[in-house]
Amino acid sequence: MVQIDTDRVLATLRRLAQFGAKGKGVCRPAFSAEDLASRRWLADQMREAGLDTSIDAVGNVYGRSPGVKHALLVGSHSDSVPTGGWLDGSMGVVFGIEAARALREQMPAAPVGIDVISFADEEGRYLSCLGSRAFCGELEEAQWDTLAYEGCTLRQAALAAGLPASGLARLDPQRHLAYLEAHIEQGPRLDRAGLDIGVVSGIAGMHRYIVTFTGRADHAGTTPMEMRHDAGMAAFEFAIDCEQRFKAASATDSVWNFGAVQFTPGVANVVPKVAELTVELRDISAPVMERMSAALTALVAERDGARQVAVSLRQQGALPPAVMDARLCQALDHAAAERQGKAMTMPSGAIHDAMVLARHIPTGMMFVPSIDGRSHTPVEDTADHHLVLGAQVFFDGLQDVARTLQATAG
Amino acid sequence: MVQIDTDRVLATLRRLAQFGAKGKGVCRPAFSAEDLASRRWLADQMREAGLDTSIDAVGNVYGRSPGVKHALLVGSHSDSVPTGGWLDGSMGVVFGIEAARALREQMPAAPVGIDVISFADEEGRYLSCLGSRAFCGELEEAQWDTLAYEGCTLRQAALAAGLPASGLARLDPQRHLAYLEAHIEQGPRLDRAGLDIGVVSGIAGMHRYIVTFTGRADHAGTTPMEMRHDAGMAAFEFAIDCEQRFKAASATDSVWNFGAVQFTPGVANVVPKVAELTVELRDISAPVMERMSAALTALVAERDGARQVAVSLRQQGALPPAVMDARLCQALDHAAAERQGKAMTMPSGAIHDAMVLARHIPTGMMFVPSIDGRSHTPVEDTADHHLVLGAQVFFDGLQDVARTLQATAG
Repeated sequence: MVQIDTDRVLATLRRLAQFGAKGKGVCRPAFSAEDLASRRWLADQMREAGLDTSIDAVGNVYGRSPGVKHALLVGSHSDSVPTGGWLDGSMGVVFGIEAARALREQMPAAPVGIDVISFADEEGRYLSCLGSRAFCGELEEAQWDTLAYEGCTLRQAALAAGLPASGLARLDPQRHLAYLEAHIEQGPRLDRAGLDIGVVSGIAGMHRYIVTFTGRADHAGTTPMEMRHDAGMAAFEFAIDCEQRFKAASATDSVWNFGAVQFTPGVANVVPKVAELTVELRDISAPVMERMSAALTALVAERDGARQVAVSLRQQGALPPAVMDARLCQALDHAAAERQGKAMTMPSGAIHDAMVLARHIPTGMMFVPSIDGRSHTPVEDTADHHLVLGAQVFFDGLQDVARTLQATAG
Repeated sequence: MVQIDTDRVLATLRRLAQFGAKGKGVCRPAFSAEDLASRRWLADQMREAGLDTSIDAVGNVYGRSPGVKHALLVGSHSDSVPTGGWLDGSMGVVFGIEAARALREQMPAAPVGIDVISFADEEGRYLSCLGSRAFCGELEEAQWDTLAYEGCTLRQAALAAGLPASGLARLDPQRHLAYLEAHIEQGPRLDRAGLDIGVVSGIAGMHRYIVTFTGRADHAGTTPMEMRHDAGMAAFEFAIDCEQRFKAASATDSVWNFGAVQFTPGVANVVPKVAELTVELRDISAPVMERMSAALTALVAERDGARQVAVSLRQQGALPPAVMDARLCQALDHAAAERQGKAMTMPSGAIHDAMVLARHIPTGMMFVPSIDGRSHTPVEDTADHHLVLGAQVFFDGLQDVARTLQATAG
């Protein structure tokens, strides 16, 4: 088996973390000076790995393997949230670069190349997964002038950042046999279970709803309990009952959250007139999501009028789930076993560029453990031995995938 | 039985409502030009009723019956909230003035006089029940410089309003056999029950608490349900269970309210780390309040740690309940029956000047119905026939009280 240069992986990761360093974490929001500087440096790394590299109009750094008909597309994103960690996104880009290096050094005649990409603005300063959407042809021309952050449109921000005025790197389904992305888990499951590798079965879709309870504002001293139309208690009771309905309607890895509640007027001595409850539900199976949404909708209908409070529902957002390709999952699982890595198959509850790519080509994802499940914070970290094992397993998996898919692609 | 001049009562009420009129309602916050103008006019009305009248340093308008050793103190307040109704407070002052007029006209030799007062700032721009507290000697000298509204101290505001720099009207327990206050109910009970008169048994005390639930902020997509420390769900469940505990611990007329809830960070995709729940409970019985508070405290202890969330409690405010004098209640109840008024005995859930006076002398309160229970809004209203009946029953009650208490006072 080909051994990658694990010291080089760690060194590359640590150098990348110097761009926008804030303590142990990084601040590299999309189109910031630090983001752009890191992208120019990543382009240099890709060139040194032998790839034909350019930075496109949206900021995607794309390095193509020369002289091959087929390639695996490998990468992630290198932008961060403002108080981000050093590995989120960056790790997947560096694993891709190391894979390209190892391939060139040790398998120069491989028929399937490795194209490496660092997508722009995955964290959604302008649009969640902006770079991968643009790469896949999902960014409308008009969005360049409608997407904006702090009064500056995407077009203005990209130009101000020194990016070319036009020209996008694009997915080529003839060339790109598959997309593979390595990422930190951003959750506690691998860490808690003492495992090394997560093989991602799918990326959970998400439905977001606002449940509105409308009662009546009354003086909380002078209005007898039985005369109240208490929107607050109606909301509390709804959430508790909804939890039971979700438990019954969900699958093993489904999650949901009542993350926000807003009372009007929301003062101590007035019975709440309106309560707005924010509900999110996620699963990797669209039918499971539909089942949970139906349970929510049914409960809204049942509770409308209870406690003399009207209940209504509106959907605020929806993302369909993305299923990872079974062959790719199998290859990553097999690679982990070969390297004595303890692996589990698991869903991704967070969104990744792989969710966009999965709509177009076979896609796979691999997780390494996040210590204490922390991410989007400077304390985000992964043990070095997990980074090293992850990079090796990921490379092995890529080779297995290349062999499998090239056989069918011809 | 002495008949009061009910047309005069309505005319006086309507004239008073012209000061600071806003539609059907009034805007007469303490020390506003409209509040002061109405007080000067009220002083004139009291003088015309034969009372020795002055406006004191805090704005109380106080009219004393001349030539008597004993008097009933009768009144309420004439300030309003910024978007107040025409009757709140004003009605009790006008009923007092009419009682003084009727007494002078029809019972000039009555041994017990009627002293009329319009207290300042009951609505608490500077301090809830400011005028009655000052009248009862409960206002500390230092508070003149510590109480403030919009950067202006009480002392500055009173001087700017043209009030005398010193001199407070004061309660005289030798002279004042009792305090009686008529008021609109400010709640829906009389109106819903089709009754005419409420005899107030007591003014509910209030305990206010903040219950704090401390969990952990986690990504709502990547954190499995069983690993969460969800402060939000813990708060919801607590409120629902607390409602049951309160039902068991409370008395017939107890009320409580979960009027505010605050999540941190309070966003859709993060498991709530902290939830703060505001709880108020009220009753006219101190032991009942203690029983309810004990139930709350016990539930906090039981739930601490459930759902992996810490629960803690802090008290934010407490007002002891005020019990109305049984003889005064009986006199008002009897007076209602004599005039064919349908009456009920009921607690006051709102605070009144009577709560302060009850700490010092025998005190009684009488309610008339509020249409739809509305108050502190320009739509606040009471049917004319209820105002007229109320004024007459109140006067009759005063006469009964005077007879009863004078016999014991000698």
